[in-house]
Amino acid sequence: MKAMTAQNLRSAFGGESQAHMRYRIWGAKADEDGFPMVARLFRATSDAEEIHATLHFKALKNEKGDFQVTSGAGFGLGTTSENLQGAIDGELFEVNEMYPAYIAVAELQEEKSALSAMRFAIEAEKVHAELFTKAKEAVDNGKDLETEKIFLCPVCGFISITGKEDNCPICNTKKETFIEY
Amino acid sequence: MKAMTAQNLRSAFGGESQAHMRYRIWGAKADEDGFPMVARLFRATSDAEEIHATLHFKALKNEKGDFQVTSGAGFGLGTTSENLQGAIDGELFEVNEMYPAYIAVAELQEEKSALSAMRFAIEAEKVHAELFTKAKEAVDNGKDLETEKIFLCPVCGFISITGKEDNCPICNTKKETFIEY
Ligand SMILES: [Fe+2]
Ligand SMILES: [Fe+2]
Ligand SMILES: [Fe+2]
Ligand SMILES: [Fe+2]
Ligand SMILES: [Fe+2]
Ligand SMILES: [Fe+2]
Repeated sequence: MKAMTAQNLRSAFGGESQAHMRYRIWGAKADEDGFPMVARLFRATSDAEEIHATLHFKALKNEKGDFQVTSGAGFGLGTTSENLQGAIDGELFEVNEMYPAYIAVAELQEEKSALSAMRFAIEAEKVHAELFTKAKEAVDNGKDLETEKIFLCPVCGFISITGKEDNCPICNTKKETFIEY
Repeated sequence: MKAMTAQNLRSAFGGESQAHMRYRIWGAKADEDGFPMVARLFRATSDAEEIHATLHFKALKNEKGDFQVTSGAGFGLGTTSENLQGAIDGELFEVNEMYPAYIAVAELQEEKSALSAMRFAIEAEKVHAELFTKAKEAVDNGKDLETEKIFLCPVCGFISITGKEDNCPICNTKKETFIEY
């Protein structure tokens, strides 16, 4: 694999791994704050970031060794409203800056396995940003996120709070395989 | 919190989050390769790294915002023997270089919450390195790790394959709270 794409994939792996961890911690806080559906959304999205991290790690499977990895990451443990704003900011950075830049380089370098991992991720992050925005609106009105179940596509990290899709709109995986929260 | 200790904690959070993710992936590979107890050791240790990442994140709870985080991380998906060598190298880097350096700075800066998180981590990593070494010896002889159960201390990330301890030798947590794998 070309060096620049490999470096970008390592950065994305580091960012996804830290988002996975942060959402677990913010999910526990949402439960404490009395927002159990927001907590479930954090946990489902945490698992989506694990899917992205795993896709990136596997695309790098032959790039063995120890590296210094630099990634963008959010910190702080505030109210659930503040944590949701942090989540929205992180997702939008990935959607608007990080993945478009990394995808442009991977296209230039014709790195197909990297491209397919990154394209699943960017499409899923758009949905994550929307759902966190909806969750923050609810919490800022003193309410929990209005839904009964949350669904995660185990292939690309797409999330649905309606379950109305037939197949995954990003990767076309059958709805029967979706994980429920 | 002093800036250098905060930066070191963010790096350690990034490293622990990536180790957590890597061990989940290497654990699935150990199952595929026919080493179910090595797979369980990877999963227990993955959860231990989540405990460390969470301790570091909580020590940073008031240091809010977005940062560029640089962390050491291993990559590559090889045979289980190769993956175990990668795990040993990562644990020993943390034991011999990373945590001693970060602890020296936190002592100088009298940052107590950082110190207590880092001291739990370094002591647990010593045990992780020993157990991965034992697992690699077994795998290199064509055998699985010899144990029936693996125990994880949910407070500090200590791991036991004997379950013979009364309380956690690192943090003194009662054995009844240990998580079994
Ligand atoms: Fe992601
Ligand atoms: Fe996301
Ligand atoms: Fe999908
Ligand atoms: Fe650790
Ligand atoms: Fe460790
Ligand atoms: Fe302990």
